[in-house]
Amino acid sequence: MPQSTDFALVEAEVPDPAEGQMLIRNAFVSVDPYMRGRMNDVRSYVPPFALGEPLTGGAVGRVVASRNGRFDEGSWVVHNLGWRELALSAGDGLLAFDPAVAPVSTALGVLGMPGLTAYVGLLDVGRPEEGETVYVSGAAGAVGSVVGQIAKLRGCRVIGSAGSPEKVAWLRELGFDEAFDYHEVPAHEALTEGVDLYFDNVGGPTLEAALSALRMRGRVVACGAISQYNATAPTPGPPNLFLVVTKRLRIEGFIVSDHFDRMPAFLAEVGPWVQDGSVRYRETVVDGIENAPAALIGLLTGENVGKMLVKVGPGHE
Amino acid sequence: MPQSTDFALVEAEVPDPAEGQMLIRNAFVSVDPYMRGRMNDVRSYVPPFALGEPLTGGAVGRVVASRNGRFDEGSWVVHNLGWRELALSAGDGLLAFDPAVAPVSTALGVLGMPGLTAYVGLLDVGRPEEGETVYVSGAAGAVGSVVGQIAKLRGCRVIGSAGSPEKVAWLRELGFDEAFDYHEVPAHEALTEGVDLYFDNVGGPTLEAALSALRMRGRVVACGAISQYNATAPTPGPPNLFLVVTKRLRIEGFIVSDHFDRMPAFLAEVGPWVQDGSVRYRETVVDGIENAPAALIGLLTGENVGKMLVKVGPGHE
Repeated sequence: MPQSTDFALVEAEVPDPAEGQMLIRNAFVSVDPYMRGRMNDVRSYVPPFALGEPLTGGAVGRVVASRNGRFDEGSWVVHNLGWRELALSAGDGLLAFDPAVAPVSTALGVLGMPGLTAYVGLLDVGRPEEGETVYVSGAAGAVGSVVGQIAKLRGCRVIGSAGSPEKVAWLRELGFDEAFDYHEVPAHEALTEGVDLYFDNVGGPTLEAALSALRMRGRVVACGAISQYNATAPTPGPPNLFLVVTKRLRIEGFIVSDHFDRMPAFLAEVGPWVQDGSVRYRETVVDGIENAPAALIGLLTGENVGKMLVKVGPGHE
Repeated sequence: MPQSTDFALVEAEVPDPAEGQMLIRNAFVSVDPYMRGRMNDVRSYVPPFALGEPLTGGAVGRVVASRNGRFDEGSWVVHNLGWRELALSAGDGLLAFDPAVAPVSTALGVLGMPGLTAYVGLLDVGRPEEGETVYVSGAAGAVGSVVGQIAKLRGCRVIGSAGSPEKVAWLRELGFDEAFDYHEVPAHEALTEGVDLYFDNVGGPTLEAALSALRMRGRVVACGAISQYNATAPTPGPPNLFLVVTKRLRIEGFIVSDHFDRMPAFLAEVGPWVQDGSVRYRETVVDGIENAPAALIGLLTGENVGKMLVKVGPGHE
């Protein structure tokens, strides 16, 4: 588990934008489970964080000075420069965000990378059919809550698990058919009626229980394994993996960054659902960049409901 | 591990065929890894063997008396009535086999269920592309040897592992690009150059090594786990299963009996390859039904090269 002493708050001089650059004043920086993986010095799908360098990651802010023709002063942008109050960018990888659509914080959550993760993972990887039963763990998180709601809108029966009574109550508000607190009810007891598709955010014993609960030709969408991210030794995989053969299961992993081409379709479908309230979201907002480490530690211990964010500057007025 | 004392050889009176029935004189009965699973009293994709009853399973024989309009006396048939010298059948699930195509024993091996397993698993589940690297474990078995040869014919680079120097030598004869004896070289040392598709017949540490060796978007065709079939306690799954997420892997299981509709395509493609020698096969033939238990035990300890068969009556003259 990361400690707050693993982080340092550093002040640096920010130069004026050079030709082609712009200066962004961040409103929110994102705190995501995958960031924990980047603290291990191993090769993976994103490089590890560099010691002594700011943490990169999602952030949304306003252009306060621009010498870049594509982004005018005053516009809102989503970028990947991470945990900082001010960011200097030449525009690479920037996306514009229209604050008339939804609050700018949603650009990091329900209408951003976590929402796209839910959309692509559920629909493109999992491919649920109407009437099927979908189970999602980490269901009160930024990804899981969107998975469950899209599955409901697609005509599925939806079961969600989360780690507190408050989270479970929220899942019921969202229209989940069943919701349980895994501290109270082990997943293998809660899933006795069977599951067609399991969207895995947590790994560990929950994955084992889901494999047992899956019906013939069931699928596991392997998205994350937050229960394992702080493991200090290799943890054994599920002892019932052979069910993949006997039940003809498919376990398939994906990384959202391979699927950014689906962003327009995602925004076209889920954007209106967010606007009309068909898809709801919550945010856990921690104030001040000095509290970003505590926010990440809180995310890993399940303190958030919905998207975990750090507010580091003024929002959209 | 089954013991020979777990089996009994029983003599019974065989009645004359009633109207609609036929009497089959078996030539060969099949010994297959999945039969070990049927010795556990658990619900699975095939029911467990019933105590005190003959073992059902693949067999090929000649119709010696027929009151069934579909099968004439003298014709060769493949059926699922298993370990017996004589079988009385009403024709359900019977397939005709033409002994002009290939020796009748191949109806239980390279041109039967194991061959179809290789064909469907490799091509329909694994979907290899030309130029990809395919790794198959249990490569000198009835399924694995066909997997490797079809993969070669489809333009793949093929690596195989098996459990003896004799088997490895045979894999080299078959044209495998690489072959290793897993007793001599651990799979994780043999697979350092990477794999796109792993056809898993064995499970256990080999599966773990293959997960580590798989390239981005690699696939595991989960066919069997013979290294685990005699486990007396649940064995942990691979500790590196999270690679499914980071490398966007797909692990997919299948059962050949779901794919019998592919039999005509399989025979049309692989039949000529067997006839012209493009696909070669070996058989380990044990003589006499009284030795069928020893044949199964031998299969589970890797004594066979290629298809394990028991000869229980006259073949095609």
